Amino acid sequence: MSSDHTRFAPLRAAAVVADADDPLAGCRARFALPDNVIYLDGNSLGAMHRDVPDALADGLGRQWSRDLIGSWNSNGWWRLPAVLGDRIGTLIGAASGQVICGDSTSVQAFQALLGAARLRPDRRLLVIDRGFPTDQYLADSVARLLGLDVIRIEPDGLTDELARRAAVVSFSLVDYRSGELFDAAAITNRVHRGGALMLWDLSHAAGALPVELDAIEADLAIGCTYKYLNGGPGAPAYLYVARRLIGQLDLPLTGWHGHQQPFGLTESYEPAASIERGRIGTPPILSMLALQAGLRGFDEASISQLRRKSLALTARVIEFADEWLTDFGVEVATPRQPERRGSQIALRSPHAYPISQALIARGVIGDFREPDLLRLGFAPLYLSHSDVVQAMTELWQVLDSQDYLDERFQHRLAVT
Amino acid sequence: MSSDHTRFAPLRAAAVVADADDPLAGCRARFALPDNVIYLDGNSLGAMHRDVPDALADGLGRQWSRDLIGSWNSNGWWRLPAVLGDRIGTLIGAASGQVICGDSTSVQAFQALLGAARLRPDRRLLVIDRGFPTDQYLADSVARLLGLDVIRIEPDGLTDELARRAAVVSFSLVDYRSGELFDAAAITNRVHRGGALMLWDLSHAAGALPVELDAIEADLAIGCTYKYLNGGPGAPAYLYVARRLIGQLDLPLTGWHGHQQPFGLTESYEPAASIERGRIGTPPILSMLALQAGLRGFDEASISQLRRKSLALTARVIEFADEWLTDFGVEVATPRQPERRGSQIALRSPHAYPISQALIARGVIGDFREPDLLRLGFAPLYLSHSDVVQAMTELWQVLDSQDYLDERFQHRLAVT
Repeated sequence: MSSDHTRFAPLRAAAVVADADDPLAGCRARFALPDNVIYLDGNSLGAMHRDVPDALADGLGRQWSRDLIGSWNSNGWWRLPAVLGDRIGTLIGAASGQVICGDSTSVQAFQALLGAARLRPDRRLLVIDRGFPTDQYLADSVARLLGLDVIRIEPDGLTDELARRAAVVSFSLVDYRSGELFDAAAITNRVHRGGALMLWDLSHAAGALPVELDAIEADLAIGCTYKYLNGGPGAPAYLYVARRLIGQLDLPLTGWHGHQQPFGLTESYEPAASIERGRIGTPPILSMLALQAGLRGFDEASISQLRRKSLALTARVIEFADEWLTDFGVEVATPRQPERRGSQIALRSPHAYPISQALIARGVIGDFREPDLLRLGFAPLYLSHSDVVQAMTELWQVLDSQDYLDERFQHRLAVT
Repeated sequence: MSSDHTRFAPLRAAAVVADADDPLAGCRARFALPDNVIYLDGNSLGAMHRDVPDALADGLGRQWSRDLIGSWNSNGWWRLPAVLGDRIGTLIGAASGQVICGDSTSVQAFQALLGAARLRPDRRLLVIDRGFPTDQYLADSVARLLGLDVIRIEPDGLTDELARRAAVVSFSLVDYRSGELFDAAAITNRVHRGGALMLWDLSHAAGALPVELDAIEADLAIGCTYKYLNGGPGAPAYLYVARRLIGQLDLPLTGWHGHQQPFGLTESYEPAASIERGRIGTPPILSMLALQAGLRGFDEASISQLRRKSLALTARVIEFADEWLTDFGVEVATPRQPERRGSQIALRSPHAYPISQALIARGVIGDFREPDLLRLGFAPLYLSHSDVVQAMTELWQVLDSQDYLDERFQHRLAVT
């Protein structure tokens, strides 16, 4: 232990210097995290902003139980999907009136894919990445309903010919396993040159790196809010539709909240003229109040500051891995070029699962993704350079001591 | 005022006697309601159970912020949709393993209608009631996707011939405006004789009256949980699928939570063998924790006790209206036979909107539905006979004094 202490002392010292220089260092105090934990799973479930308990206490004690049904007006419940949508929009480069919040990411993926495909009725192809499975499952479902074909590719494999055949190209901006970041502007441009529509899944990007939906002329986007946006477990997702497309967008989930006159209670559906047509049913207000408070974490941190810090943190991980982990057969699966990586690092090892469990036992919480990836997320709002060095030191100790071979780390939990 | 006091004194005295006899009288104390309010809108947004704040404080302070991502296992988040589904099942006559909780009622309506229609691929017709619009909008959307026709009828208008042509018949068990309750067993039987599938929307029924889905051999059902089930604003909905159909049900919203191996992360969708196939994306955990606490309101009240009390309360309203309100042109729009009414009373008046506003100004909260209905809900868990008499007395005073003609009651709010 003391030799490890000496071994990594220069890294620790450098991290202390970097932390002293960090303009975002003060943000950490706004989040409630256990003292004995280094949380590297904010890319799966973000940490809780300290304003959330008060926001929910008010939601329960004043809004729901005292103001009751009147809260839909007096406490702004009705407007929350659009209010939260606009707030999220500021983090993904979307001007006001193009983002609506609600439902799960899977539901939004179905809405967006089907709605987008209907905008290109003469084309019979959906192109989807081999990333997070739910988008693929829903693309298959949409294709079946509309009589389309689905082609799965790696985003870098998009050809001009596919862009000319596709109705919609739907990619995750950051690969959920490797953390690879794709070139949103170049891909969107290629898709448009071919006459297709571009749908981005921002789940693993929003809140950690710059996304400029309006500037790159993206057509649609979806994303979840419980990762880097810190909305809380199962927080509602969002749908972005470029202003030029809203009026034509013909969505399948025609719930009454998306109606032009929700309280007209007419028999036939007339979609709202605005982005409100992306609403479906009654939104989960309590989860939305938590999300609203969680988004306050971004009030004092710009996306460019966050990106700068995130890249510094992940660079530190890559350097450490290259110097100290290759002897243990652990390799970096995330692109080394800054412009090609998101805010997470995937380390490949045949022992990735027990290593992830041994790390958790030491208070370093990352996760595992089949078949051989240790996935570590670096939320720049609440992680320090010193956290990163300590987490890497613990990882080195797990590997050097072969702690991970312990029986108790082999058992696979149903959910990880 | 003193003459009113004398006029209604016998009614008040009778209510006091009924309250003293009420086996559910103690339930009221479990709900947080303002002292100066009689809340007759529990059919729109149920009151808050007093256990909810602690449940959410634990969800935030211990589960999310301390146990973090591990809560999916250690705090049972992953199992919540099925756990809540089973709890709701006990209130709607469904044995374990047939109800799953999640998403909005509109999303569940789409899932259920489309999934059910796929079970009758040789039939090209959906039959839907003229009740709550969202079910109609979604039936139209499903029909368009599958190439079906939609016929809108009143539930009593279902003929054998329609049941022989329909793939699915979907009705609300209680009409959201009039409060009319339909004969679930007889209608389901007629639908089955014709070879169609029966889908019930229980939104305005569950928690207030007996629903026996298994016993009547219903095929599918959906419902919301924020009305009589007191789940909170926008609380997640539920889907019931009869056990005999689960294995064949082919749903369109193929999110990863419904996969047989959600963490296998395979490219193609294989639905879970169980009711878990009704899951879609990551569920809104915070809203689910509130719902779980809200459902504790039913721990000490049986559905038959609730139904008995509900009918006694609504009978009191009808008697009052017949005796005291007809002179003001107010008539009861809800069926008088107990077996034909839910837990709400609709009163028809051309002045229904300003009357509803004048009542709210007096602390009696009901609502208005286009074009001319004052809609009053009677949640038997937290309303007393004395509440009902006081509410009716206030209504009589509003009418007798013509308070409702006041300018401030004429303005229509965007949301009611």
